[in-house]
Amino acid sequence: MLFKDITILDENLDVQTNMYVATKDDRVAYIGKTMPQGDFGEVYSGKDRLLMTGFFNAHAHSAMTLMRGYGENMVLQDWLSKRIWPFESKLTSKAVYWGTLLAMAESLRFGIVSTSDMYFFIPDIAKAVIDSGAKNNISNALVVNSDIPFEERSEVKELRVVKKVFDGAENGRIKIDASLHAEYTSNEDVARKLADLAKELDVNMQVHVAETKLEFEECKQRHDGRTPVRYLADCGIFDTRTTAAHCVWLDDEDYDILREKGVTVATNPVSNLKLASGICDTAKVLDKGVNLAIGTDSVTSNNSLNFIEEIKTLALVSKVRAGDPTAVTPKQALYAATKGGAIAQGRDDCGQLKVGNKADIIVMRTDVPNMRPVHDALSNIVYSASGSDIVLTMVDGKVLYKDGEYKTIDIDKAIYETERATQEILSSLGE
Amino acid sequence: MLFKDITILDENLDVQTNMYVATKDDRVAYIGKTMPQGDFGEVYSGKDRLLMTGFFNAHAHSAMTLMRGYGENMVLQDWLSKRIWPFESKLTSKAVYWGTLLAMAESLRFGIVSTSDMYFFIPDIAKAVIDSGAKNNISNALVVNSDIPFEERSEVKELRVVKKVFDGAENGRIKIDASLHAEYTSNEDVARKLADLAKELDVNMQVHVAETKLEFEECKQRHDGRTPVRYLADCGIFDTRTTAAHCVWLDDEDYDILREKGVTVATNPVSNLKLASGICDTAKVLDKGVNLAIGTDSVTSNNSLNFIEEIKTLALVSKVRAGDPTAVTPKQALYAATKGGAIAQGRDDCGQLKVGNKADIIVMRTDVPNMRPVHDALSNIVYSASGSDIVLTMVDGKVLYKDGEYKTIDIDKAIYETERATQEILSSLGE
Repeated sequence: MLFKDITILDENLDVQTNMYVATKDDRVAYIGKTMPQGDFGEVYSGKDRLLMTGFFNAHAHSAMTLMRGYGENMVLQDWLSKRIWPFESKLTSKAVYWGTLLAMAESLRFGIVSTSDMYFFIPDIAKAVIDSGAKNNISNALVVNSDIPFEERSEVKELRVVKKVFDGAENGRIKIDASLHAEYTSNEDVARKLADLAKELDVNMQVHVAETKLEFEECKQRHDGRTPVRYLADCGIFDTRTTAAHCVWLDDEDYDILREKGVTVATNPVSNLKLASGICDTAKVLDKGVNLAIGTDSVTSNNSLNFIEEIKTLALVSKVRAGDPTAVTPKQALYAATKGGAIAQGRDDCGQLKVGNKADIIVMRTDVPNMRPVHDALSNIVYSASGSDIVLTMVDGKVLYKDGEYKTIDIDKAIYETERATQEILSSLGE
Repeated sequence: MLFKDITILDENLDVQTNMYVATKDDRVAYIGKTMPQGDFGEVYSGKDRLLMTGFFNAHAHSAMTLMRGYGENMVLQDWLSKRIWPFESKLTSKAVYWGTLLAMAESLRFGIVSTSDMYFFIPDIAKAVIDSGAKNNISNALVVNSDIPFEERSEVKELRVVKKVFDGAENGRIKIDASLHAEYTSNEDVARKLADLAKELDVNMQVHVAETKLEFEECKQRHDGRTPVRYLADCGIFDTRTTAAHCVWLDDEDYDILREKGVTVATNPVSNLKLASGICDTAKVLDKGVNLAIGTDSVTSNNSLNFIEEIKTLALVSKVRAGDPTAVTPKQALYAATKGGAIAQGRDDCGQLKVGNKADIIVMRTDVPNMRPVHDALSNIVYSASGSDIVLTMVDGKVLYKDGEYKTIDIDKAIYETERATQEILSSLGE
């Protein structure tokens, strides 16, 4: 595909006007001021359009689209025990497939090319992601609620199998990660064994860390004054490439541990506000040299996958958290949304618009009133764009979404089947 | 117009499915479960659509679209003295007209039917609003920076003239309000005289109140320990119907004064985050029985007029401010966005979908992945909708925006002329 005479954000997230960008197979083949030689297929006119690398959603539970808006205005414990857990106890393979496919459709609409997922039924998640054409680092979080020996646990057995079947599938679009749900839902023996297994299998780790003050305080009580970050580091959880979701409650030493261990902080600003968990000090995360990425968390605590909104919320809450209107610039926010997430996922040839990188591209329209005038294009993207100003999403060189149309997903069917699966689960709960 | 077989939010913001809504002239003529008798003109199919009353933007400086993204990542004083004030010193009547028209276009795209505006060149603001078909309570904030006697001040002379020329114009679409910029930019003599003038002319008041902690603390030092709310009440500023923008820093007694005086708090959640001013305790505003409305502030501190985003941000930050995930329900947020704002503007026949009320209506599409499934339609509107899921905006019975097309505004010309006016001002500043 050849994007002709278009404004771009280059690999440094700097604005370049009147550019030509060509893709060949799954890669970016050309970026330049002049028309490239050769035939790249379809030509896309860049008038009133802005092209940049797509977004990386560093923390999600995609199939929870099934529960969008289910259990609102409840305190956390009621919400979990009266809504989420009963619903999840009835989940089926089919429900997870359709819920994930709907999430992929929503993700593509809002420019997300790749997601770090943490949910049940990995094979069904993988199938939906493969069908959608998107990328995903899939994991199933280990929760310890019985005395079953480590190797007998279903998540452990599943991880060994799905690693063989799916890791690297579809030209690398699918990756399999290990996952520990959290400090407070596991024990030291299991955490250490999972860390060892991640090393043995050479996979990334995804883990929830210090989402609430209660978790932070209780962890210190349980573990000789050690914070969740210190405790998980001691268990070896950070010894393979790790994404630590949330990190709202950190002490000074925690930042140093995260940097030294190369851990990515995946901040979930909307979810943390909605559940009143607090605000991650992302300005400090950046100042301390820790890699920052952005996640949506699930739509039950968001309730959308509108990544433009997530980036804006990140930039906004960072300022009030730091008490400084200059904290977290648009460029820093966009880096976290792109390269920061690609680093977290171990996708080294993604997250930057660069010749030879994967062609994961989004195009935004700028002929709408909210995108004009343009004193500062980066500010307009972060603060002024509406999620649906994104008009094209390409993954690995394939256009998956364009002008409201999906190329790989029958959206009416995805909505219908997701709603049917939801109703079946509600019926089985007697609702 | 007849909306056929459509889901609506009724006057209590409750969901009703398979409804018929008809408008005649500028009013809602029918709401019911069956097709109404009579000819209402165009028939609109309600399949996969949701209809509700439009949004009221309770605090804005519309023409500052000219400066969208101009002066980002700066501390307040630098931003004002190096960017905003020099630019504003070069404003022209033409620039304000086009800047306001572009803001009205953006407002209509995001479902705003009426705005409370505070800016210079009232006649040009009025002309742009009239041309757009939208509603506006227009004011020009009085700032005291010289010893000119009260009646000699340009804002005072202008208020007397524009009240006669524009107040109630266009079948009531245009209203003229008085405005004091703030406690810290005025003095007691002027504040008292403006309060008296508002009573004499029988107009509403718009005023900035307690936006920053500095303002709150310095006011108490200047005025014998009185907070901005107490001081302005003592000056009589709240004696006509008043909108108090911001109210981030209030003490306990302030809430009682606001309630007793019938003052509306216009919260500006995005702007308050972006400038790191703090978070208005809107849960407490509601608990104390004070009318709550929502404003965008200007796009220089936002940087959009995406009202869906503003409502979501309000609901989110309220929870983290209150430390309670149940604080400010979707219904409370939507009431503030509609009837709360209409009350602030003194538009008694607006802000609720009700037979006999003005036909200020928006229609949202629900056949997009982010709006499905529907466990809770109100949650989906507040938390899941994207601003541009709004596909129709009607004011006083006239469709002004539909499926991306403007009926009253030449959007290409509005963008072109706004950008040209911006360039002229930048050139005159030597940029």
